Order: sequence, then structure tokens, then C-alpha cells
Amino acid sequence: MFGQMQDVPLLVSSLIDYAEKFHGEREIVSRTVEGPIHRYTYADAGKRSRQLAKALLALGVKEGDRVGTLAWNTYRHFEAWYGITGMGAVTHTLNPRLFADQLAYIIDHAENRFILLDAMFTGMLEGILDRIPTVEGFIIMTERANMPATTLPNVLCYEDLIAGHDGEYQWPVLDEKAAAAMCYTSGTTGNPKGVLYTNRSCVLHALSAALPDVMGAGSNTTIMAVVPMFHANGWGIPHFAPMTGAKMVLPGKEMDGASIYQLLTEEKVTLTAAVPTVWLMLLAYLQENNLDLPHLERVVIGGSAAPRSMIETFETKYATSVNHIWGMTEINPIGSLGSPKAVMRGMDYQSQLDLKMKQGRAMWGVDLKITDDEGNKLPWDGKAAGHLMVRGPWTVSEYYRGEGGQILDEEGYFDTGDVANIDQYGYVQLTDRAKDVIKSGGEWISSIDLENTAVGHPEIAEAAVIGVVHPKWDERPLLVCVRAKGSAVTKQDVLDYMTGKVAKWWMPDDVVFVDELPHTATGKLLKTRLREDFKDYKLPTV
Amino acid sequence: MFGQMQDVPLLVSSLIDYAEKFHGEREIVSRTVEGPIHRYTYADAGKRSRQLAKALLALGVKEGDRVGTLAWNTYRHFEAWYGITGMGAVTHTLNPRLFADQLAYIIDHAENRFILLDAMFTGMLEGILDRIPTVEGFIIMTERANMPATTLPNVLCYEDLIAGHDGEYQWPVLDEKAAAAMCYTSGTTGNPKGVLYTNRSCVLHALSAALPDVMGAGSNTTIMAVVPMFHANGWGIPHFAPMTGAKMVLPGKEMDGASIYQLLTEEKVTLTAAVPTVWLMLLAYLQENNLDLPHLERVVIGGSAAPRSMIETFETKYATSVNHIWGMTEINPIGSLGSPKAVMRGMDYQSQLDLKMKQGRAMWGVDLKITDDEGNKLPWDGKAAGHLMVRGPWTVSEYYRGEGGQILDEEGYFDTGDVANIDQYGYVQLTDRAKDVIKSGGEWISSIDLENTAVGHPEIAEAAVIGVVHPKWDERPLLVCVRAKGSAVTKQDVLDYMTGKVAKWWMPDDVVFVDELPHTATGKLLKTRLREDFKDYKLPTV
Repeated sequence: MFGQMQDVPLLVSSLIDYAEKFHGEREIVSRTVEGPIHRYTYADAGKRSRQLAKALLALGVKEGDRVGTLAWNTYRHFEAWYGITGMGAVTHTLNPRLFADQLAYIIDHAENRFILLDAMFTGMLEGILDRIPTVEGFIIMTERANMPATTLPNVLCYEDLIAGHDGEYQWPVLDEKAAAAMCYTSGTTGNPKGVLYTNRSCVLHALSAALPDVMGAGSNTTIMAVVPMFHANGWGIPHFAPMTGAKMVLPGKEMDGASIYQLLTEEKVTLTAAVPTVWLMLLAYLQENNLDLPHLERVVIGGSAAPRSMIETFETKYATSVNHIWGMTEINPIGSLGSPKAVMRGMDYQSQLDLKMKQGRAMWGVDLKITDDEGNKLPWDGKAAGHLMVRGPWTVSEYYRGEGGQILDEEGYFDTGDVANIDQYGYVQLTDRAKDVIKSGGEWISSIDLENTAVGHPEIAEAAVIGVVHPKWDERPLLVCVRAKGSAVTKQDVLDYMTGKVAKWWMPDDVVFVDELPHTATGKLLKTRLREDFKDYKLPTV
Repeated sequence: MFGQMQDVPLLVSSLIDYAEKFHGEREIVSRTVEGPIHRYTYADAGKRSRQLAKALLALGVKEGDRVGTLAWNTYRHFEAWYGITGMGAVTHTLNPRLFADQLAYIIDHAENRFILLDAMFTGMLEGILDRIPTVEGFIIMTERANMPATTLPNVLCYEDLIAGHDGEYQWPVLDEKAAAAMCYTSGTTGNPKGVLYTNRSCVLHALSAALPDVMGAGSNTTIMAVVPMFHANGWGIPHFAPMTGAKMVLPGKEMDGASIYQLLTEEKVTLTAAVPTVWLMLLAYLQENNLDLPHLERVVIGGSAAPRSMIETFETKYATSVNHIWGMTEINPIGSLGSPKAVMRGMDYQSQLDLKMKQGRAMWGVDLKITDDEGNKLPWDGKAAGHLMVRGPWTVSEYYRGEGGQILDEEGYFDTGDVANIDQYGYVQLTDRAKDVIKSGGEWISSIDLENTAVGHPEIAEAAVIGVVHPKWDERPLLVCVRAKGSAVTKQDVLDYMTGKVAKWWMPDDVVFVDELPHTATGKLLKTRLREDFKDYKLPTV
């Protein structure tokens, strides 16, 4: 027997419609790529999104077509998300930090018909123009006066384009499973793979992400989306901000301490989110200039782990609470957030920090399990580490064009590629990437734990640990280090330093010094290359 | 083009599954109908819900079957919601305050196969047994020792029943549009009509209801669901509490000030919700005993309007913020909540109170319009009053068995039957029921405004205003009053009192005194009866 409630599809366009109607006066403040601060309201954004939608329709864009964006976080990029997705096309966010080869591959693989871009990225596309034949035109997101000189063909000026259309337009009633947006993973192996979000997954994710224990966004929130919109669906901020009437602050391309501080203070930002690097720069700036953060209530940190000292500094010196967030492109992207539970009340601060160092607990809509190599479920005791598996209404079912084949297990879980433990309260602690874990005598050694310990040595600038073949133990850890500038630290110094800080059987069998370690375009350690370089390495313990 | 995210249906069973897995330690505290306080956890509740589901399956209950509950808010009623809905049947909440005739009609109309009830309600069902032939058995929600003597046939003891089944059970993967629960409207005209919630509507409603600007529930919230679970889906609390890991306090049948105060204090309740009557009793109790409310952060009040003095007392004397909520059985049930917007910051307190007296603003998922009699949209200026129309994924599409026919307009909006204005910020102010508004010379006069003004007179105990036929103005208001005990207040006294408090042309054309006013079983003024009684009344102004 079916219920008798209205069959209203969950559409991304409903988010901007809601904001325009119920929070029309609320502001969106952007630092433009040209420099000046721009401010307008959700009512303005709604109207201009519809103007863009009509312009795209006039250009011949159809439902399901992929339209790329190559842009920093500004109001025009926000309008583009709604204009493109709202009219039924697919917003394909492109990461300008990728290598040219990857960018060309992604644009071509997704068959983008148009690309909306910030003026500064024309050169990047000129360089790969012959490899992106599906692109029919380039829409530069600026006004006529700021249009750049470029050899790109079929260039349009965004402001001129939308000025030709009024805002009289009703978003189409799409199937809620229609593709809304796409984002490619920045894999460390093989070609990037596309994840195709549905309208439904974006709306459900936004609802759950805005809950009090997750991002906690309401109409009194002022959220600065420092995390780029081209990075994993912008952590959902451009979706849940209009859904809840939160004021949105978009920092453009300036991520330095002074620029971020200016917006935090002048716009009275209460909540913000980004990777640790941004916060290192901000904290240094605050320290140097003896400033504080009177409005900022909470910082959400993801992408990689925040150092304990960073969390402690924000919380004790600036009275700004910090939570780790965990997510990935494949899950729209938020999976867990480290807000405290009632059972943590009354804990001493260092114990709370221990928990804050974990990656948090899942909100409704994210189901987790950890398994061993055979797929058996492991206990949630905060110790047993296994493959972190996720399923739910905003978890990927397959990659674009089916690449990678069947990616779910028989229970419907997707393998995150992470190794984690989960404690009795559901807090997840990532211990390694599955492909980086060192399997020694049937037990797992976390390469990340060893790296973190090694870089604690003041003369180690960077460290990577990989497994190297060992006849008795299968694999044993090899520590590859970059010395700090001017240092002559030795293998024995490092091993002495690590002794007692990690389990004895986890200690690296050898230490090698190199001038630099290989990285991906987005700054991740490229361990595949390192494993290739050291595949014939003979450990002294063999 | 379809997106490629997992096709996971939105099921009510996922809420208890989530709570059990991620908030298994969090408590549910109940005052049992037998008296003692009972406490256990979401882990316990999850297991016992599955035991009940298996027991119902063993009794032959099938997907789509209606299973009634006639019970106060306790942990067993909570388990019943999940056990029944989770296994695919339909939880049909029955209101014990209904007249026997209505209860018999509703049970029969919905064809309930079983009824789960508190022991105290056996007599109520014995009296209508011959009129509810579809009911195959009665499950008394207590343990063997407390089983009542009853002439009901096929009586089962809840605890014995579930003790026969273990918790090893996987909720079925239902269609998300499968009926989850049903609730009949307590209409003031005609037979009650059934509203059949879908699993999807319950889950979406729960997500939006838990948002910071709506009920604002998280794992640090302790929410007392004073509003009965048999009343309009219990305002969604039994759904969003497990979804967010909120501790839940269930007060059983005791609504007096002392009982409510005890739970608020001992369980450190932070959030609660009920109709104004309950809060009048609590405030009187606090006043008499010189007590305060150290833990309670917010009271949400709906069902009918809270007096301004009640809101002010809670906020200024007890530092507990108050918000009006508006909803109805037909919308699952929350439509709007009066949490403040950023633009209200810095307003003086009396201006904030003016806004708090309104019914609040819609959250995402609730779309509103106000229209005139011809269906034309009216402006949102806080003045123009029109028919309040609502649509969205948790708004009814039709009543059970199609009764009432087509109930949506051509844009898909459902007519709430309320008359309201909406201001520029989206705050809704109900001014009347559409059928009670007095249409005088083409303009609308709010019967509620006149009644509120009249009862402001210290010697008026209760007042009702109805429209009476007038040859020149079509209708003019007639004020029907009940004098306070011992009062001899006159028509002229009342009119003098009202003069200057309402627009001159709104002033009643006559005042009539009666000994009592007619009410429905749930305490609403029965104006249909009053209109019938006064249908030939001759106004002195004719």
C-alpha cells in the first residue's frame, strides 16, 4: 500500500528557489577574482541563475549535457551551479590545480560542451585546446571591461550573455535521479574517475550536512566556503547554505592569512571549512599581528588531518571550536564529522582532543563498516583496523561510464580505500590508505602513524613509509625521509627518536634519505612512484 | 542522463537502525502508564522493535496492513512505531480523546487488523467492539503482572508476545513510497479523513524538522515529547530523535505541572514541545512552588496560539526561549517554526515578541502561498490575508480512499483551510480559519482577532465570533460570550472595552451571552454548531 503524500522530486533547483522566497534578503559576499568585494542577496542570485539557465538554453544546451566550470569561489560560480544544474544540465567542476594532461583528459572524457571559467584560466585552456574537441564555447565569468585577451575560440562574456535574458523562467521538473553535477577523483593511480551526483543525492546530503551535529547551518549562520567549489562538491556548502538561509562568504582566489582574516572579521563569519594548510597560514597571520577571532565559532577541517597543536590553538587561544570532517568525492562528499557526543561531557580537555583528532562519526544517511581482507566485519572497539566501507543514498554506485567495474560489495558497501578503526561511540579514526598499509606477518602496520612519528623529529622535513618485500614477514617498513634544510641527521638518530614512540615490531627496518618526495598535482604523496623506485630495495634485515 | 549514486530508499526503519548503530548508548526515559520511570537505550529499543516486528509477522500481519496504537508516549509506543512500520505495515495512531463514535468510525474505516493499547483503554474499546469487526486482536502494552481484566476477545500481553522472538531480523527493503503511518484529521465538519504518510515523507520531514532553525536536534539534545504520539505524527519527534541521537524523554499520561517539572529537571531536558495548555499548568506550578528551569533551553508551542504573556514569562523569568510552530496532520506535520532570523538581531524585545506571536517561517520542503477567493496570489507584506496554501514532499496529495476528492489546486498546493498573512521575511501569521472568517462588504474580518480582544476583558471567560447574514454587508460579526463566574458584564461593557482595540468596521454588530460554547472532542470551538444555532439571528443593525 502506497502512502498518499505529494510526489515532489528532490531537485537542486528547489534550494535556490527556497532561498529566494524565504531568505531573499540574506547576503552572499564574494571577493571577486578582480579584487573588490561584491555583495548581493539570494533574491539576486536566484534571478541571475535563471538568466544564465535561459542563456544556456539559447546556446543549445540540453538536459544531461555536461557544462564545465573552472573557477574560484565567487557569486558567479555559485550562480553557475544553479543555472546549469537547475535547467537540467550537469555542472562539471574542474580543478585548476590539476596537471594539464589530467585536465585535458577529464574535459574530454566528460565531453563538456561549454566551459565557464575565470579570466585567469584562459591560458590553461589555450594550452590543451586541441585535446578538448567537444567544447563548443568558453564563457568567461566577468564583465566586458575585464575580458582578457585570449586565443580561445568562441569566447563569450558572462555578463553580456546573461544580460540578454530576463529572469522569467520556471525550473524544469526533472527526475530526481537526473545527474546534477560531476566531479572527478584525483586518484594517485590510473586516470581520474568521474562521480556523477544525482539531484536527489545533493539534496539529501545537504539536509543531513546542515544538521546541528554536522555543519549546523541556519539562517543566523555566516559560513565562509574556503574549500573550493571545484573540490568534492564544495563540501556541500553551496547547497546547504541556501537551503538554510545561511549568509555565504566566498573568498575568491585569495587564501592567504590576511585575506581570509579580513573576510572573517568584516563579514562576522561564524563557521568556515577548509584544508589544514589554509589554517596554518591564518594562525601564523593572527600570531604575527596579535589578532583574535571574535566572531568565528567553529572551523571544520578536512582533506587531511589537522595537527593536534592546530586544534588546541584554535580552541584555547581563539575560543573557536574545531571539528574534523571526513569525506570523499564518492560520497557527495561528507561522511562523518567530529562533533562531541553527550558522553564526552565532563571529559578533561586532552581526552576531548584525543577524540577530536579522529575523523568523526557518521550522520544519518551514511552507513559504515570495517572489514578485514576477507570481508569479515571487525568490531567497533577503537582498535581493530580494517577497510572502511560506506553505503547510503549519497554514496556512489558506479563511476562514470562504468569505469572500474562493479565497485560495491554484496551488501552494497563502497570501499573507501581507507583503513580505519571505529570506537564504541562510532568515531572513525583513519589509520592509513589500504594500498599503503604494510602487511607484516599477517598484521597491519600503519604507514601514516610511522610518518607522523618520524616528522616529529625536528630535523625531518617530510617522510614517507612504504612496505618493501621481506622473505620472512612478506613486507617490512622502509622509511624514506627528506632532511630539514642544513641538517645532517642520521639513520640512527631517527631510529633512536622513534624508539618507544611506536610498537617495537612497527619500527622501520631501514631509513633512506632523499632530496625530495614525489607528489600528485593536488599535493598528495605519490607512493606508487616511491614503491616503483624502491621495488628492488634490499632491507638490511633480509 | 541519470546520476550514479546508490538507489537507497528513504525508510523509517533506517532511523532506528542508525540510532542503534551510532547512538546505541543514548537513553530513552519514559514515565510508564503504571507510574515508575523506565530507562533504556536506542540499542535496546532497536532490538525490541525487531522482536515486535517478528511477532507481528508471526501473527500474520502483512505489508500494508493497518495496525492501530491507542497509547500514551512511552518506550513501548515508540517501539511499536518502529516495529509496525519497519516490517512494512502501517502504524495507525488512535487518539483516545476522541468520542467513541469517532474512534469506532476511524478504526473501522482504516480496517485495523490489530490494536496495541495501554491497559487503561480496554474499556474504551469494549464499548465499541461490535463496530470494529476488522480487528483480530488486542495487544495490551504491558507485562503479564499488569494485565487488566477485560471482555475484549483475543487479548495478548505485549511483553509475552515479544519475549517469544529474538531480535535477529533485517528490516525489509520497502519502496520508499510505501505507507508508513496514518493519522486521521479531527475535522470540525464531517467524518475524520485519513492521511497516509509515506516512508519517504516521514524521513524527509524528520531531516528538515531537525535542522538548527526548526527543532534543532542533535546528540546533545534531550527532548521531551509532551505532544502525544497520537497527535499529528507526534510532531515528528519519534522520527528525528533517533535520526540525530537525541535523548528522548516520554512523559506517559501525566501532563500536570509537577510531573512535567520532575522530568524536565531530573532528565535535564533541553527542548520540549506541546500545546499551550500543558505550559499553563507548568508555569502555574513553577510560580506556586518558586521553582526555575535551569536546563530547559527552548519550548516549542503549537496546536493553538500561546498567549503573549506565556512567551514573555518563559523568556524573561525562566530564560527559556519560546517558538511557535505551525503544522497540521496533512503535512507530516511541521510547516513552519518561529525561530529568529538574522535581520531580527538588535530589535527591541517587544518587537521580537510581535514576531514570536506569529506562526513562524517555512523550512526547506514546505512551499507556501496565500491567495484570494479567486486563487490569485497575494503579496507578502504582513497585511494581505488570504487562503494559506502549502505544497511539498511531505504535504498530502489526497486523503485515504480518495475522500474529499481532488484536494490540490492546479499548481499542486493543498488548501490548509487557514487564513494567513505572510510578511516580507516569510513569517506566517494565521488570522482565522477560512470557514470562520467574516466577509463584510467584500473585506475579511478575522473572527480570531475579535475573540482574542473580547477575552481580554476580565469578565469574559470565553468568546466566539461568527458571521451572521446582513442584507447590506453580506455578513457582519456576532460575538457570543460566556461570562466569567459571578459576572454580570453587559453588552455595552464589552463593546466599550473593545472600542479602539480593533478597527471600527470590525466591531461586532451584537453581543450575546450564553452559558457555554460547543466544542469538539479535542477541545476546538465548534463554530458549525454555533452558526447553526444562530442561523436565523437578526442583528440589531439590520
